[in-house]
Amino acid sequence: MLGRVNHIAIAVPDLAAAISAYRDTLGAVVSAAQALPEHGVTVVFVELPNTKVELLEPLGEGSPITAFLEKSPAGGMHHICYEVADLLAARDQLVASGARVLGNGDPKIGAHGKPVLFLHPKDFFGTLIELEQV
Amino acid sequence: MLGRVNHIAIAVPDLAAAISAYRDTLGAVVSAAQALPEHGVTVVFVELPNTKVELLEPLGEGSPITAFLEKSPAGGMHHICYEVADLLAARDQLVASGARVLGNGDPKIGAHGKPVLFLHPKDFFGTLIELEQV
Repeated sequence: MLGRVNHIAIAVPDLAAAISAYRDTLGAVVSAAQALPEHGVTVVFVELPNTKVELLEPLGEGSPITAFLEKSPAGGMHHICYEVADLLAARDQLVASGARVLGNGDPKIGAHGKPVLFLHPKDFFGTLIELEQV
Repeated sequence: MLGRVNHIAIAVPDLAAAISAYRDTLGAVVSAAQALPEHGVTVVFVELPNTKVELLEPLGEGSPITAFLEKSPAGGMHHICYEVADLLAARDQLVASGARVLGNGDPKIGAHGKPVLFLHPKDFFGTLIELEQV
């Protein structure tokens, strides 16, 4: 079921400082920042040869990463996004095996404009897993 | 400086259960478990098309992931490993820019038999970064 690692997401309290760390200190290519008010985040992508790191900063009220940053004010690894060929088939198979999908179970349009679902971290050893339709 | 994401490491309290979740529930290929007593962990690799997820379980006394699992008993994302072409040059450049290398600053031989270094998570927004010589 799992395909490529589309990205590893890292929540940060200060996106400008994080951009500087990844671009200037670690020497990576970092995309321009995109504000995604419908997702409650501002994002940049650190472009690696085989995948991406997504740096997320809260945007607006009720950002989905606000609670995470309250627990981990310095920031930290937030989720892994895997590509799947058939998101609805993957969801049905996961639910049949007892895994929990967050929200109402219907895919939402993610930060890349593609349908996504999130799996409950309690079912996967503390790791929040995003599945993205390719 | 940063090359490919070699792996994303996830610490788990029960490796057998985690293998089952990734292999049976998520349908991924998982390698045979390797006990690495000199690193204080037992590891398996979840093989994805473009990178790997490393599942780590503590092995023996003084495992480097025991403290992590005391804070996060369910498990969680532990570090990201990036490949670099020249580990000593990367280290010297990072230290010159004010980043801290864990330990005495000399590379150690990592779980893959290659020289590695770890960077202080406080310098990188709560993310523990491993650099591996390719």
